[in-house]
Amino acid sequence: MLEQFASDNYSGICPEAMEYITRANQGSAIAYGNDEWTKKAADYFRKIFETDCEVFFVFNGTAANSLSLAALCQSYHSVICHESAHIETDECGAPEFASNGSKLLLGKGEGGKLTTETITTIINKRTDIHYPKPKVISLTQATELGTLYTIEELMAIKEVAQNYSLKIHMDGARFANAVVAMNKTPAEITWKCGIDVLCFCGTKNGMALGEAIIFFNKELAEDFSYRCKQAGQLASKMRFIAAPFLGILETGAWLKNARNANECAEYLEQRLSVIPQIELMFPREVNSVFVKMPEKVIEALRAKNWHFYTFIGVGGVRFVCAWDTTKSRIDALVSDIKNAISF
Amino acid sequence: MLEQFASDNYSGICPEAMEYITRANQGSAIAYGNDEWTKKAADYFRKIFETDCEVFFVFNGTAANSLSLAALCQSYHSVICHESAHIETDECGAPEFASNGSKLLLGKGEGGKLTTETITTIINKRTDIHYPKPKVISLTQATELGTLYTIEELMAIKEVAQNYSLKIHMDGARFANAVVAMNKTPAEITWKCGIDVLCFCGTKNGMALGEAIIFFNKELAEDFSYRCKQAGQLASKMRFIAAPFLGILETGAWLKNARNANECAEYLEQRLSVIPQIELMFPREVNSVFVKMPEKVIEALRAKNWHFYTFIGVGGVRFVCAWDTTKSRIDALVSDIKNAISF
Amino acid sequence: MLEQFASDNYSGICPEAMEYITRANQGSAIAYGNDEWTKKAADYFRKIFETDCEVFFVFNGTAANSLSLAALCQSYHSVICHESAHIETDECGAPEFASNGSKLLLGKGEGGKLTTETITTIINKRTDIHYPKPKVISLTQATELGTLYTIEELMAIKEVAQNYSLKIHMDGARFANAVVAMNKTPAEITWKCGIDVLCFCGTKNGMALGEAIIFFNKELAEDFSYRCKQAGQLASKMRFIAAPFLGILETGAWLKNARNANECAEYLEQRLSVIPQIELMFPREVNSVFVKMPEKVIEALRAKNWHFYTFIGVGGVRFVCAWDTTKSRIDALVSDIKNAISF
Amino acid sequence: MLEQFASDNYSGICPEAMEYITRANQGSAIAYGNDEWTKKAADYFRKIFETDCEVFFVFNGTAANSLSLAALCQSYHSVICHESAHIETDECGAPEFASNGSKLLLGKGEGGKLTTETITTIINKRTDIHYPKPKVISLTQATELGTLYTIEELMAIKEVAQNYSLKIHMDGARFANAVVAMNKTPAEITWKCGIDVLCFCGTKNGMALGEAIIFFNKELAEDFSYRCKQAGQLASKMRFIAAPFLGILETGAWLKNARNANECAEYLEQRLSVIPQIELMFPREVNSVFVKMPEKVIEALRAKNWHFYTFIGVGGVRFVCAWDTTKSRIDALVSDIKNAISF
Repeated sequence: MLEQFASDNYSGICPEAMEYITRANQGSAIAYGNDEWTKKAADYFRKIFETDCEVFFVFNGTAANSLSLAALCQSYHSVICHESAHIETDECGAPEFASNGSKLLLGKGEGGKLTTETITTIINKRTDIHYPKPKVISLTQATELGTLYTIEELMAIKEVAQNYSLKIHMDGARFANAVVAMNKTPAEITWKCGIDVLCFCGTKNGMALGEAIIFFNKELAEDFSYRCKQAGQLASKMRFIAAPFLGILETGAWLKNARNANECAEYLEQRLSVIPQIELMFPREVNSVFVKMPEKVIEALRAKNWHFYTFIGVGGVRFVCAWDTTKSRIDALVSDIKNAISF
Repeated sequence: MLEQFASDNYSGICPEAMEYITRANQGSAIAYGNDEWTKKAADYFRKIFETDCEVFFVFNGTAANSLSLAALCQSYHSVICHESAHIETDECGAPEFASNGSKLLLGKGEGGKLTTETITTIINKRTDIHYPKPKVISLTQATELGTLYTIEELMAIKEVAQNYSLKIHMDGARFANAVVAMNKTPAEITWKCGIDVLCFCGTKNGMALGEAIIFFNKELAEDFSYRCKQAGQLASKMRFIAAPFLGILETGAWLKNARNANECAEYLEQRLSVIPQIELMFPREVNSVFVKMPEKVIEALRAKNWHFYTFIGVGGVRFVCAWDTTKSRIDALVSDIKNAISF
Repeated sequence: MLEQFASDNYSGICPEAMEYITRANQGSAIAYGNDEWTKKAADYFRKIFETDCEVFFVFNGTAANSLSLAALCQSYHSVICHESAHIETDECGAPEFASNGSKLLLGKGEGGKLTTETITTIINKRTDIHYPKPKVISLTQATELGTLYTIEELMAIKEVAQNYSLKIHMDGARFANAVVAMNKTPAEITWKCGIDVLCFCGTKNGMALGEAIIFFNKELAEDFSYRCKQAGQLASKMRFIAAPFLGILETGAWLKNARNANECAEYLEQRLSVIPQIELMFPREVNSVFVKMPEKVIEALRAKNWHFYTFIGVGGVRFVCAWDTTKSRIDALVSDIKNAISF
Repeated sequence: MLEQFASDNYSGICPEAMEYITRANQGSAIAYGNDEWTKKAADYFRKIFETDCEVFFVFNGTAANSLSLAALCQSYHSVICHESAHIETDECGAPEFASNGSKLLLGKGEGGKLTTETITTIINKRTDIHYPKPKVISLTQATELGTLYTIEELMAIKEVAQNYSLKIHMDGARFANAVVAMNKTPAEITWKCGIDVLCFCGTKNGMALGEAIIFFNKELAEDFSYRCKQAGQLASKMRFIAAPFLGILETGAWLKNARNANECAEYLEQRLSVIPQIELMFPREVNSVFVKMPEKVIEALRAKNWHFYTFIGVGGVRFVCAWDTTKSRIDALVSDIKNAISF
């Protein structure tokens, strides 16, 4: 058994998702999303978000992000994002590829969050035709550093977006964790804050794979199904993405899974916070804990086969909890950390 | 229960694939294909093909075809294929998109097959820089019309490819059906015939989704994993594609499934061949039967909720059998056809 | 001195264009089109077309066509054009490249012209997401075969475009020749017929290089200057494209040049029409004459170093007249033809 | 008359270039580069560079840079360049567009120059498939800040490139100025230092437009003419780019023009260096002078209609001299500066 706090995408398929795969696996079904499961899953998203949005299912987050960004800008436009954004650091140029060249304009900001000042500075830095024109602000909620944009921050960014006619894209790789942590409705932290399109991740939330692209701004979804098809993102047996999505949504597993991950991270944070040699880099808000620890501890953990990510330069370690993380596993990790320190 | 002969991608997940998904769903695993299942599945392909090929797993056939073609040609090159090739007729311009503009040069040919004459004519039609330079021949085995390239035909095409320095891509949407029908080894009908890259379809063969891209010409696979990642085709929980692939391969289900589909189609062909009002369009070779039938029969079948494809212009009907097709369902179809005729 | 009827782009720079290059070459000027010449040339186009259109200058026709088409459609859309259209046969996949994958849907039609029937058939052939969605009709005026769409034909196509929400692009490689031949105003054969964007060729009309892209539908020109810049089509010393354009326009040379070419072609047609062994393929309408002639004549002309194009398959020869073609050169050509025949 | 030190692309056409345009404008010539002028100009480049390189002519520098970079890398590769490189700051995403997504990885470095340390750090920062793989180092010679890479610096970078199997691209927007300033042969500062491809700018050197792309590594030029054609960069009347290139090369104007620009900048530097309120930002090496000056002086110069660029943030002013800059104009500028200061 792999001992890991590396990522929520190391985890497996949750029971509810698996149950719905099994249910969907009865006989034949019309291909390419013209089946009942797909219809029901899309409708359930509309119910959860309390609005008549357009919903598309694709295979993974990189595809969801890059195709939705491509729908919001042309090749000579640019996307403003945080320098730690997944679209910049971990998608191998997917947004540039899908859009045929759009540039990502990187902003700094504490806790992995863009500020209105940063965004405005980037917008105004260049306004001539020799540099790609900003067209989109991309936010990750929760961020890559496990922090959250507050409603107030989102509303302020919305205002900037409106002032400069920019669209807002939200990378929701850990959207469920954000919903649970903020104690807000999905609507309150998306379209009510001006989000035009959300990429809602199923994989990290307990599915085998699958991402929902949700256009609150329906005009932007024009012909988007063609875009998905052309980019190799239209599943023929779509029910096996749609059904598990429906499964985690209508059973409430999407929230239960996120809550477990968040609570485990909270527990881990508490246990680590009392160890003097461990420095919490910033307050945990969802399901990951970022800490600095002595190099020898890191080595000792690796020697015990613990999996986790370290960040070069930053000198930090990221521990991520998932839907299936248990307190006993956390206790085992903390125990190994303490042992390593005491040597 | 959907009554269908529309496509083998209307069918569900076969038991062996499901079993291996369940097996793979134990605890955590390293993401992005660095897990044991992915290694084993890739190794199994090497075993089956009896050569040290490079193997990549992507989500679906459109992605497999378009990314592998993009690896074989630049935007100003062209791909020679049959006018009925899936890459031309049903992928919404995916090859053009993935390659940033490569043109498909369409050839005619009986039974959905390119001939050396057609290929040579296309190659020699234009040789100036004002027209994209041919670089790849794309063959589908079995073809979209359910026919097969013989070893002799493949060897002849290989010679043309060598003479003109072209690469050969094989769309193996129904490769398993071809292997079973030809009674040849996978090696004999691929790299031994000069195939540089094969897209091996798991979905139509009984998986939920998944396609293996197999580079026999390993040089062409340079940095291909980057290409997959950038195109949104790298699954984080890769084991859920790799494990069911391993499942259908090592249990022999890939051949069993294909055999059932082929045999069912053979049975259907036999039963239809004795009905005077039904005209077989050409001899069935794998798992689909193409026939011409009176319009009123088509309407009657649709009224009874049978699903199948008709081809505008051609005036034909395609019946496809899958891994889960049964003779009793065929009997029911034939019965409904006879009833419709007798009215 | 090259003896040629190969193409109007074999000809040199006409005196008026050269004169304005010289005039523009006084001291310095603001770069990238922010100079007076560029403003004046754009304004002159607005005057000639009697409407407030958007005007952009690029280097050549391939760029003009592919960038303007890219402005009218996304990668998963398609462009309907004649199978002999320059964008299909002679731009090496430029439209597919500039648009990142748009497909050209080819129609047949006498004299190189699309008909409403052809267009409608193509539009209705496929309406599912597995095939690129038609978004643009591209017409060449005058066509690649030297024929002309009449006002009535253009109006009929406009109606089809409106019915199906398609845009109309006009490749005006020989637009000046069309204006002269039709005895209509530029406005009458463009935006009054529903043309959304016109590529107005300067090169074939007597310039060294340069093409004006004229958006009558101004909404389609949004951010188009960024597109030109990104595609390497923004000249820094723009005045050297704009000034000669202004030169040929305000001196009337654009019409004079076209008229000479058309009249020379008419004269050539007359002289050839009385030679029994020469078959006119279809009536000449602008500045090119298409004929069938014995192979030995073709060889004899080549031996005498005459340059012209032959069309494989068609078995025809194209003679093109340019702004600088003279009757004496035509007489020399006809004389050589007659001599070759008499042997 | 525009009073300007804004850019060398504000200047006009030098007499030698104009003379050769006139010479080339005799009668007809074969189109698309199959003429004598193009052959001679390409040969002359081979002579100047003392090697059998491949030479292509395109319209401008953005096209030359982006197409040559696209020839050196795939969409999932990356290009290492200085953060002030023109390809990053002033080409509106052209490299990303031409390559369908390649990322530019930006390095810092004094005087606009990359160092081997910077390059090595960037190369080693990420080596996983989630980030574009470095494939090219792009250097500008002379740099955007008017500085020069020494032979020693180039040789050191060559070694890094070889160690990591990277190619080297050189943006030669002001290559002639570099040759003159360094007192080295063109060969010595290009292919003998490991440069694989050079973009040799004609426009800033005194032509109306035109750029030569010179592949010293001939393998990289495979099918490059198709790439130019597809990208709208193949001039039909190619002689009007090739002839003026031949003109400035064989008359020696390319060096004379660069020398005048460099000497004028040297003169300007000397005159400014003795004004206490003016701070030279770094030593001038070719034809531009970067200074800091009081805001009121900048305003006064603008009021007198002087054109020049200021750099936001940097607080600096760039004065560029061109082939046609005169000392009297410099004296006038300096006089106005002094007057403004004394107020």
